[in-house]
Amino acid sequence: MTDRRHTKIEVLAVGSELLTPFHLDTNSLFLTRHLNRLGMQVSFKTVVGDKPDDLASCIRIASERSDLILIMGGLGPTQDDMTRETLAATMGKRLIFQETLWEQIQDRFRKRGISISEVNRKQAYVIEGSMPLENPNGTAPGAWLESGGRTFVLLPGPPREIQPMFLSLVLPRLQEKREGFQVRKTLKIAGLTESKTEDLISDLYPGIGPDIDLTVLASPGQIEVHLTAFSSLSEEDAKKKLTRPVEAMAERLGENIFTQAEEELEGVIGKLLRENQYTLATAESCTGGLLSHRITNVPGSSAYFLEGVQSYSNQAKTRLLDVPASLLEKHGAVSPQVAAAMAENVRTNSGANFGLGITGIAGPTGGTEEKPVGLVYIALAGIGNTQTEKNLFLGDRETVKQRSTQKALDMLRRRLLRSLRDRGRREE
Amino acid sequence: MTDRRHTKIEVLAVGSELLTPFHLDTNSLFLTRHLNRLGMQVSFKTVVGDKPDDLASCIRIASERSDLILIMGGLGPTQDDMTRETLAATMGKRLIFQETLWEQIQDRFRKRGISISEVNRKQAYVIEGSMPLENPNGTAPGAWLESGGRTFVLLPGPPREIQPMFLSLVLPRLQEKREGFQVRKTLKIAGLTESKTEDLISDLYPGIGPDIDLTVLASPGQIEVHLTAFSSLSEEDAKKKLTRPVEAMAERLGENIFTQAEEELEGVIGKLLRENQYTLATAESCTGGLLSHRITNVPGSSAYFLEGVQSYSNQAKTRLLDVPASLLEKHGAVSPQVAAAMAENVRTNSGANFGLGITGIAGPTGGTEEKPVGLVYIALAGIGNTQTEKNLFLGDRETVKQRSTQKALDMLRRRLLRSLRDRGRREE
Repeated sequence: MTDRRHTKIEVLAVGSELLTPFHLDTNSLFLTRHLNRLGMQVSFKTVVGDKPDDLASCIRIASERSDLILIMGGLGPTQDDMTRETLAATMGKRLIFQETLWEQIQDRFRKRGISISEVNRKQAYVIEGSMPLENPNGTAPGAWLESGGRTFVLLPGPPREIQPMFLSLVLPRLQEKREGFQVRKTLKIAGLTESKTEDLISDLYPGIGPDIDLTVLASPGQIEVHLTAFSSLSEEDAKKKLTRPVEAMAERLGENIFTQAEEELEGVIGKLLRENQYTLATAESCTGGLLSHRITNVPGSSAYFLEGVQSYSNQAKTRLLDVPASLLEKHGAVSPQVAAAMAENVRTNSGANFGLGITGIAGPTGGTEEKPVGLVYIALAGIGNTQTEKNLFLGDRETVKQRSTQKALDMLRRRLLRSLRDRGRREE
Repeated sequence: MTDRRHTKIEVLAVGSELLTPFHLDTNSLFLTRHLNRLGMQVSFKTVVGDKPDDLASCIRIASERSDLILIMGGLGPTQDDMTRETLAATMGKRLIFQETLWEQIQDRFRKRGISISEVNRKQAYVIEGSMPLENPNGTAPGAWLESGGRTFVLLPGPPREIQPMFLSLVLPRLQEKREGFQVRKTLKIAGLTESKTEDLISDLYPGIGPDIDLTVLASPGQIEVHLTAFSSLSEEDAKKKLTRPVEAMAERLGENIFTQAEEELEGVIGKLLRENQYTLATAESCTGGLLSHRITNVPGSSAYFLEGVQSYSNQAKTRLLDVPASLLEKHGAVSPQVAAAMAENVRTNSGANFGLGITGIAGPTGGTEEKPVGLVYIALAGIGNTQTEKNLFLGDRETVKQRSTQKALDMLRRRLLRSLRDRGRREE
């Protein structure tokens, strides 16, 4: 980032329900998305309950460390809703009753055929010196207050009220504070651990330039490298700044990157299958349907996904997948031979171009010393050959299921890329 | 609540990704649930990025206004991970390299057959005077630090690392700080909308008593009524306060409640199937494996789940499920007749006691005026008869899939309850 002073932004979500185990502040994601595009970053997000003392302390802290403070929630008519009053008291401002606002609120109630209650009167008070922000979807007006060199924006909590108010009344005013243009690129990686990813690219970090932020994120079977570029000139300029660092990282990470777009692995293999008019069938044991669930989360997947079989029992493996009973007896259901037979037979039976077979022990029980929990064999049957991989995945039942499907999809992705390259070579 | 001074608790989530539009801090929900049981409430939740200055300011503020500060994230091996270093610097403590910890970390890598990289070395540094908290699911150890009358707990960010560490190493130490006893009862409901649920129980709200909090939460296909009681005396006393209100609500809601425990619908039908030694097979079209994925998320489900078939293509419906081509032609793949045939045939073919069949249009495309997106037929085949239901679900593709599987599982649950009642009657 450049050295000049940025607007320090803080998002303050008010509401005791946001401090329970049941509710998350999701409004801040919406606000962040729009602020980011103006080149503005959120530095702090705070959640505080309905206690006026706690809220006052948060407002004081925000006004010391931040320039733009977006406060959401607590503008309603009930006794718990104290945001307007607390902000006024903390900033040493009076609350002024506005007759015209009171009439607007009453009018709103009349139009909806609801009788107004006296408690709603408090929503007609305005902080001295502030500009009320009309709320077309609710009774709580917002407010824009400039005080002590800081900007406070008061917004209602419900998503269907905050979103239109922010877009129509706040965003246009924030355009003046635009700091530039931000563009983000995400490299999503499968088949590498976080440390292995870092080993491959960390020596590039010092060279990526001062205007670029880098974050590495890990989830089961997936690593994401986020590169964010900032330009004070234009979006084009921000994009240009990303070109070289993204290319450098892409060169190092090669095919381990499955996408540079906002899509999932199942979306990527979907596109590869579709473009090549290939079809796919799956045979799952320990993943129990998660693989086909993920594949079919992609709209339009019926174009390439023919069928899936969850052969949980040995009989199902024999009847639905023609896995010979002798093979199951000789090697056990969790074996490379059975994984290969599942993949090959679901491919042949369905007439698909590719078959994926997964058999393993998801746990928490069922493991032995020889075949521990997390042991998963994955086979990919294609034209001419079958590739089988042995994996030992860490984690609970759902994590083992997730990692297994991620690995299976990634094996298919790499195979499809290889087959495209081979085809390209033949056509040369 | 009692008047005495409560432990002020702050949860501080560290990570620049949590300030982007893509990520929410969900760990705090987990922490809050467990703290609440000790009668402890969270007062502030703060999210801050990877910038050491911002993090230092948050740590300073937290140490001024809070007694117990739970800091999550930023303990990993990468250059962004600066939490340990920043806490040490802010509290004026040194970092000390611990040879034994380094050996543990190396050992972990060896066991997994992964070569360790030098960047992991920084995870072997410990804040002077702190107690390291072992991380069985990752390389980042946590820490417990008492300093200046405050308690700081450093925890890793990934859910599968923070959860076991918190439960086994942090929670037992927090027992000493217990402020009372909070007991929560959750009534989980399937088959009713939120407003229908409120209609049935809202007149009971005024009578539930001052020590009890009530929250109603809605998610696709599921409503939850949370009742929370607090007692300064004992868990027994808090439980006693809940008895009457829970009974009153349970009477009103009847069999719409599928559990009063912390379990999912798939866990409930799993228990019912198991207890009665019944078996199940599934045939899915538009849900693409989500139904069998949910069923097999339950440990031990191999005892009753025999097989699942995703008959995405019509050929698969014919070959794997013996659905007559004439039936598909006459009524279309999305029809009550095909749903029934799928359920009946997967039941017969697998030899299971029950068969579930789902066929529908998950969207976003593929809908027609006659058969719109969200139209889903669900059939349950059991001993003697097949029940088929027509549904029109709202929402995007994943929501339609979720609602469909929820409905299918709930049909099975109600059928199992009925069959248990009938059996009880016969045995009388």
